[in-house]
Amino acid sequence: MWDRFIRACRREPVDATPVWFMRQAGRYMQEYRAIRAKWGLLEICKAPELAAQVTLQPLVHGVDAAILFADILLPLEPMGAPFEFAAGEGPCMLSPVSDARGVEALRVFDVEEGLGFVLAALRILRRELEGKTPLIGFAGAPFTLASYLVEGGRSSGYTRIKRLMYDEPKVWCVLMNKLAEVVRRYLRAQVDAGAQVVQLFDSWVGALAPVDYQEFVLPHVRTILRDLETTGVPVIHFGTGTGALLELQQEAGGHVIGLDWRVRLDEAWARLGYDVAVQGNLDPVLLGAPRPMLDKRVRTILAQAAGRPGHVFNLGHGILPDTPPGNVRYVVDRVHELSQEQ
Amino acid sequence: MWDRFIRACRREPVDATPVWFMRQAGRYMQEYRAIRAKWGLLEICKAPELAAQVTLQPLVHGVDAAILFADILLPLEPMGAPFEFAAGEGPCMLSPVSDARGVEALRVFDVEEGLGFVLAALRILRRELEGKTPLIGFAGAPFTLASYLVEGGRSSGYTRIKRLMYDEPKVWCVLMNKLAEVVRRYLRAQVDAGAQVVQLFDSWVGALAPVDYQEFVLPHVRTILRDLETTGVPVIHFGTGTGALLELQQEAGGHVIGLDWRVRLDEAWARLGYDVAVQGNLDPVLLGAPRPMLDKRVRTILAQAAGRPGHVFNLGHGILPDTPPGNVRYVVDRVHELSQEQ
Repeated sequence: MWDRFIRACRREPVDATPVWFMRQAGRYMQEYRAIRAKWGLLEICKAPELAAQVTLQPLVHGVDAAILFADILLPLEPMGAPFEFAAGEGPCMLSPVSDARGVEALRVFDVEEGLGFVLAALRILRRELEGKTPLIGFAGAPFTLASYLVEGGRSSGYTRIKRLMYDEPKVWCVLMNKLAEVVRRYLRAQVDAGAQVVQLFDSWVGALAPVDYQEFVLPHVRTILRDLETTGVPVIHFGTGTGALLELQQEAGGHVIGLDWRVRLDEAWARLGYDVAVQGNLDPVLLGAPRPMLDKRVRTILAQAAGRPGHVFNLGHGILPDTPPGNVRYVVDRVHELSQEQ
Repeated sequence: MWDRFIRACRREPVDATPVWFMRQAGRYMQEYRAIRAKWGLLEICKAPELAAQVTLQPLVHGVDAAILFADILLPLEPMGAPFEFAAGEGPCMLSPVSDARGVEALRVFDVEEGLGFVLAALRILRRELEGKTPLIGFAGAPFTLASYLVEGGRSSGYTRIKRLMYDEPKVWCVLMNKLAEVVRRYLRAQVDAGAQVVQLFDSWVGALAPVDYQEFVLPHVRTILRDLETTGVPVIHFGTGTGALLELQQEAGGHVIGLDWRVRLDEAWARLGYDVAVQGNLDPVLLGAPRPMLDKRVRTILAQAAGRPGHVFNLGHGILPDTPPGNVRYVVDRVHELSQEQ
């Protein structure tokens, strides 16, 4: 069943639980490292043929979806906030945004002009995958993008972004409005270019208190997701550390709520209610564990999801670089076999 | 009411909600920086008179408890795993533990011999504070201590410690047994030396899936807390990122569950049930926010805790170094005033 992933997102019955992995194209694959030996991460993103090639690499593991190879930070450059990846490090903003002037200078750009290469890669992939494997588009959510913009890179404490939020609520609102409009246009354009499912990555929103999420973030995410719902394409809404934010994330929107490993899938789904699908939620470190342990935890997740359609198997976050590729294939096969037995 | 903090821990009625702050003695205070200009962090910990002096500094803000100035890593050195604090950095283990041999070499030591200076500081403080301010002792919990031992310092992904847990469950068990016995003896000795309440800091346990916490951590924490309960002293059980672990932490023990800001206090307390007290849970970044914002969030927390005894006001984690000391005093006063009005 080529479309079991899309069907599960819509909570329709499937022959087996679909499975894909966040960051399934990446350094754990020899084929990817071979390409990265010649090209930088951003160079691959900006060359549609290369991005499409890398996107297709993990299909060898039998996953049920392909996710466009790209980086969540790509929209920041055409907004006027360039960044680079230092060797072995995370992203580094060349001029972090810290005040009203910095926010004022950010541009809401035309997607075809600023990120046409992403749309081109999606068009290539859609032709390549038609009727074989569904294609996922994605974007970072406003808070998560803002965390890089303001902190200047990956953060441990999110102190600067929270200070901006608490100290300058009007500047914050302008920033979030701009980011939300950029993300809304970007995801819409991805759907127009052929993405059959889209995932919104609010990866770092778990740093917030529920009351702060509600006041400072939720309205902006809702603007994006309300609009996307009119496209008819399933939307996955994902974050990490969101154990106490799940209901609010659901209120913001999405057909599928992405769960990280810090929650029990069955408890989270019961809290959300069964009119939403769920995706997750194996700890990425388990992909490197001995097979008996890995098998045990895969079984636990499948058992917690059993009894109704609407579960997409995934990790709780991206694949780690030192993951043995054989284990990726192993989990794909176990998920398919065990869910068919159920 | 000098003992409103102890009374709240026991869920007894109080005249006002007690308040103290994790890391209330620290770099945000000019008086502390003056001492740190002359002495290193570990030097202060190891000099009972100095440690006692620093412990007393934040009482100027009107807090309802004094917490011994010490570091959660102190027990690692007498276990045979020394560490140091690089300037401006977190702790750095000189030889991280990575295998059975490293675990085998760790010693379960005699507390008076290995950490007599901590007990001496407690004895000084107890004399100083008698009948005026309750004294809190504390220790890091086995998982959190192990995370430093194995990762070599502060971690972002907890990959190494999880690998050890998944790959070598027997070695893991030996490691946790040793740490649990060290922590149990250490906290017991602190109670004997005069600590009137103790807090167990399992600060980083929120990195784990509930099923992993249950299998690999909970039994060891329970061993410690069951034993401590026989001392008659209230025990606070604290972690961060534990939104989905609270019930399991409660199962492991403690009279008070420490909440971080990522959960709503009212929802968390309802989940735990009202036969346990709660502590928390202001985002530490808010202590640097403008007064109207800070006041709003303090009110929200007090309103969520209203209606029954058993709430200790605190942050969701430690005070940040750039916190204005005036805001600490402000929050103490607001908590006292507002809770008296309620």
